[in-house]
Amino acid sequence: MLHLDSDYMAGACPEVMAALTATNMERSTGYGTDDYCKAARERILDACFPEGGRMRADARVYFLVGGTQTNAIVIAGLLRPHEGVLAADTGHIAVHESGAIEATGHKVITLPATDGKINAGQIAACIAGFKADPSKDHTVAPGMVYLSQPTELGTLYSLRELTAISAVCRDAGIPLFVDGARLAYALAADTNDVTLTDLARLADVFYIGGTKCGALMGEAVVVAEPSLLRHFTPLIKQRGALLAKGRLLGVQFGTLFTDGLYERLGREADRLAGVLAEALRQHGYREVVAQVTNQIFFEIPNDDLPALAKVASFEEWGAPGPHYTVVRFVTDWALTEADLKALLDYLKG
Amino acid sequence: MLHLDSDYMAGACPEVMAALTATNMERSTGYGTDDYCKAARERILDACFPEGGRMRADARVYFLVGGTQTNAIVIAGLLRPHEGVLAADTGHIAVHESGAIEATGHKVITLPATDGKINAGQIAACIAGFKADPSKDHTVAPGMVYLSQPTELGTLYSLRELTAISAVCRDAGIPLFVDGARLAYALAADTNDVTLTDLARLADVFYIGGTKCGALMGEAVVVAEPSLLRHFTPLIKQRGALLAKGRLLGVQFGTLFTDGLYERLGREADRLAGVLAEALRQHGYREVVAQVTNQIFFEIPNDDLPALAKVASFEEWGAPGPHYTVVRFVTDWALTEADLKALLDYLKG
Amino acid sequence: MLHLDSDYMAGACPEVMAALTATNMERSTGYGTDDYCKAARERILDACFPEGGRMRADARVYFLVGGTQTNAIVIAGLLRPHEGVLAADTGHIAVHESGAIEATGHKVITLPATDGKINAGQIAACIAGFKADPSKDHTVAPGMVYLSQPTELGTLYSLRELTAISAVCRDAGIPLFVDGARLAYALAADTNDVTLTDLARLADVFYIGGTKCGALMGEAVVVAEPSLLRHFTPLIKQRGALLAKGRLLGVQFGTLFTDGLYERLGREADRLAGVLAEALRQHGYREVVAQVTNQIFFEIPNDDLPALAKVASFEEWGAPGPHYTVVRFVTDWALTEADLKALLDYLKG
Amino acid sequence: MLHLDSDYMAGACPEVMAALTATNMERSTGYGTDDYCKAARERILDACFPEGGRMRADARVYFLVGGTQTNAIVIAGLLRPHEGVLAADTGHIAVHESGAIEATGHKVITLPATDGKINAGQIAACIAGFKADPSKDHTVAPGMVYLSQPTELGTLYSLRELTAISAVCRDAGIPLFVDGARLAYALAADTNDVTLTDLARLADVFYIGGTKCGALMGEAVVVAEPSLLRHFTPLIKQRGALLAKGRLLGVQFGTLFTDGLYERLGREADRLAGVLAEALRQHGYREVVAQVTNQIFFEIPNDDLPALAKVASFEEWGAPGPHYTVVRFVTDWALTEADLKALLDYLKG
Repeated sequence: MLHLDSDYMAGACPEVMAALTATNMERSTGYGTDDYCKAARERILDACFPEGGRMRADARVYFLVGGTQTNAIVIAGLLRPHEGVLAADTGHIAVHESGAIEATGHKVITLPATDGKINAGQIAACIAGFKADPSKDHTVAPGMVYLSQPTELGTLYSLRELTAISAVCRDAGIPLFVDGARLAYALAADTNDVTLTDLARLADVFYIGGTKCGALMGEAVVVAEPSLLRHFTPLIKQRGALLAKGRLLGVQFGTLFTDGLYERLGREADRLAGVLAEALRQHGYREVVAQVTNQIFFEIPNDDLPALAKVASFEEWGAPGPHYTVVRFVTDWALTEADLKALLDYLKG
Repeated sequence: MLHLDSDYMAGACPEVMAALTATNMERSTGYGTDDYCKAARERILDACFPEGGRMRADARVYFLVGGTQTNAIVIAGLLRPHEGVLAADTGHIAVHESGAIEATGHKVITLPATDGKINAGQIAACIAGFKADPSKDHTVAPGMVYLSQPTELGTLYSLRELTAISAVCRDAGIPLFVDGARLAYALAADTNDVTLTDLARLADVFYIGGTKCGALMGEAVVVAEPSLLRHFTPLIKQRGALLAKGRLLGVQFGTLFTDGLYERLGREADRLAGVLAEALRQHGYREVVAQVTNQIFFEIPNDDLPALAKVASFEEWGAPGPHYTVVRFVTDWALTEADLKALLDYLKG
Repeated sequence: MLHLDSDYMAGACPEVMAALTATNMERSTGYGTDDYCKAARERILDACFPEGGRMRADARVYFLVGGTQTNAIVIAGLLRPHEGVLAADTGHIAVHESGAIEATGHKVITLPATDGKINAGQIAACIAGFKADPSKDHTVAPGMVYLSQPTELGTLYSLRELTAISAVCRDAGIPLFVDGARLAYALAADTNDVTLTDLARLADVFYIGGTKCGALMGEAVVVAEPSLLRHFTPLIKQRGALLAKGRLLGVQFGTLFTDGLYERLGREADRLAGVLAEALRQHGYREVVAQVTNQIFFEIPNDDLPALAKVASFEEWGAPGPHYTVVRFVTDWALTEADLKALLDYLKG
Repeated sequence: MLHLDSDYMAGACPEVMAALTATNMERSTGYGTDDYCKAARERILDACFPEGGRMRADARVYFLVGGTQTNAIVIAGLLRPHEGVLAADTGHIAVHESGAIEATGHKVITLPATDGKINAGQIAACIAGFKADPSKDHTVAPGMVYLSQPTELGTLYSLRELTAISAVCRDAGIPLFVDGARLAYALAADTNDVTLTDLARLADVFYIGGTKCGALMGEAVVVAEPSLLRHFTPLIKQRGALLAKGRLLGVQFGTLFTDGLYERLGREADRLAGVLAEALRQHGYREVVAQVTNQIFFEIPNDDLPALAKVASFEEWGAPGPHYTVVRFVTDWALTEADLKALLDYLKG
């Protein structure tokens, strides 16, 4: 069975696994205070702020274990008690994290997304509406904006879109947070024009996904504006996301940010996603959202599902009507064209 | 530098690392739904309920990533909003988890510990005091009991002590939860008489520590009375402790629970702790708590600290006066007698 | 200036004020343990369960101070940590309580309302969708249903609608909670066919509003199924809603539930709302939702607002376009036809 | 039966009740936006900052309904998520609020009290200990200090003590919050040397109790340093403490702060407490804490309790041994010497 449910199907990429094995029996201090973490932070800062300067000096990098906890803890750290977070109604925090944000006491204020994205105009209108509301003390204040790059539908914010959203946030004095759980696949996409440097400049906080992008686990939070997240380490500890053997995250991110490995991992996955999407189109299936990264969404007749499910596993993303199901296939760094062969043959057959 | 700060200084034990490497490029489903997790759960249940029967059929095993999150999520799952958790005033949840329990909305009600332990009489008195309190609607109800085995001072509850505490909890109708972050070192101790089977019978929920006992990370929660923790998986997800690549935990715990590896790892660490404790005693230092597992507590003259700190790292546990510091040394599965040589030589010298 | 912003513009109805004055210097025990509270609870139970029986014997009545706290505490008491509350997207808890529900850790799962109401089919579909969701451990479970009677748009659930919703909830095994902040105006409405007895039979928990219905403050929570809200008093205390001088609430509700005062107060307010709505219609304004209780919603040309605002105050409820504003007028028990005269004259003029 | 359990036994003082009655049928805007609240805020500011100036211009007054909610909301507003509140182990928030502070996510860090009080040295030592702790990211940071004036044992902080505590807080950069639920009885005490002006100067936030000091309900929070509590109104609303008919609080506090009524109410209660304490001493009972305000604590032989309980009600405050019970009597503004007569006669008899 070829598992294409998501991009956390395999372990770590060989380079990361080799680094973990090589350092395994070393003894070092815990909770991210070790030298591997220090070195990995420097490499990430080098990639985000290649020109150095005051922003690089101020910026901070924190390693957490997984995406849900990263979203919940960053958002809990950024918001004041009366504030909520603006997000696309298809956003991960609004749909698939079991109420993790609400569990920290904050509302997710959703905006209707188009192909997984919200835009600067929507955000500005929501903020303006709140400010003009005569009973605003009785409504949840929009306190920050959450985006995913790529989005939950595999689409990308362009540099122009992200610049506009960042400008709206800065005008309003609220932080912009970008969830990069799948960032490798965004950075590597043909149509992408948003670099790490752009993210570091336009977002106040963002994270670089490890779990779905070549690591066993781990997410690297980059805080470009640390005054927004003072005392973040005790918060990470309190919410249970400070890995005791923190070094494991340093070793992994240090490897991923050596010799361009991180983007390289995304590139092949995006290419294979393109190959698979083309095969699905050729087969006559309707593409729901144009594929640009490693997630592919197609409308499949329900009658075809059983046969397809024998060749590959996938996730169902709802039903547009009684006869069709939207299906998501996800490629990742571990997948090869050989792995896909049986599925491609089936689609051609 | 020999790091003896804690038992999370090294990576995973070789058998675990080999298993992770061997399975690394396999693709499997996420979040603990894979076959490695299923197999590991069976092995743990076999170890806890060797005679099978209805308790084994009812019991559940969940894998989480780290200790703080495990404590916070189990406690949040067990308590009703108006309840608190009874714990030793030296308990991890009361002291060293950055307010993780309070962050879930619950008070830690502390009882004065003796050598890290509380006893059945104290617990019964606290519950009786609450029940007799005319203003009990205005005080926090004791809703469960939290113990650590071994305790934060390396000591052990005896079977007799644990049986008495369990009886008090059952009389009062409140669950007993045992934190086994270092359980391997308890199970392997010479003086220990509490087996996994006893824990499974006397506690309602307990966890078997992986992070400090041979795994890269991971804790296995055994729920002997699952009616107390219905819908626990969405809670684990919501609180950010459901590992996407859940298989990693299944592979590790499956290995740890093969051929008695888990207890074997603890045994050598406990033995080395005994060797080191004896050397410290011979040197003339006062032992604060008699060593029985892998944690050693000695009172060291402040004047000796700089020289000692050049040979080994350790944690400081407070000052009994102006001239002394209580110091904790911790051995673990990864340590060898060769690693200790320089320190032992120093103490002899 | 005639204040028609809401129904909390005046103090208490004369009968209530007289009772408070008459008992003012008495000394009694606190926190609702006094005889006035006991008597008021009996009267409310008599009104809800006139035939007595086991339901009356089991049911409980609690007095809280205000509506937001009542909603938040009841919902926090009813839900398990992984659950959310289903509500109309126009529901008070979704819109106008500053994130009070999320502050207790729970998501408000909104359904699109029609004239302020949701229906049994929507609720059933939502629950069925959750149950069929393959990733339901990653989504918020619908754990209860919240309705308002009358709704935030002044409309009423019919007995048939409420019966259908109650049946869906019981099928699904989740509680139904009805917010009756303005219940007097519902009970008194010409078109209403839902009695207190029906509410007590069909809802698991509901509250009888005092603040907006003749009391200085206070809400009476009726728990028809007390096993759902065990240990509710310490929760009320913990969340700061247990009035120290609890007797004040007993005196007020005892008075409101003597000689049919509660419904009588609603009747005149509803009648005056009808008079005002008719005048607005006659003036040519478009009614947004047909008036049945004490809230009136009309679309007013923006050009008319300044002049209107000189005669009466009101709340703005959003703008259907650039030239119109939806305006809400609210009558209450304290209002007389004489109070309305200037406004009626203005509209006729 | 003479109720001396606490100081919330009666309704409102006659002046307050008269003002509520006189304004009862007026219609005004809600949630504290009315003119009565505005006027009451000015009077309170006049009393706290008689010399005007920038502090008066900056300071803010908010009205809430009760003490528990006031403590919980102020503390939740002042603390960052990783911080806790320092308090006496006999402090109301540590003992008698059902875990209200923990329910907002924060730990109450207790210090051992002497006669209900903690001192500057203890607070400084606790903060210094935290700062010196090598694992301080794993412990709860002391983020503010909570005091009660008078304390839960009826004792008073002197100006010297309060000045020293304030200095420690300012050195450490953490706010000082004073719970004045019974402030009238402190201000009126013979031995008191802390004025409202001192409180406004030395504390960052404090509240002036209404519920126990002549009002039906209500607490007035004075925020001397408003940058610490930005956006406080939506937080009050979210936590359910924003009274809809907010005017009721304005009318009451406006009256209490007219012509020195507030302190006058305290004076007679303190005097009567002195009379009763003397009678108890004369009877031969041991005074546990020297009476200075309206709370009296005596050790009573258990054999005497039944007879005493026939003359007056009181609260039991624990048992110093098998034969004695500590009993608390509380006088209040509503009590007269005539009310006390039977009890005094009994003690003399």
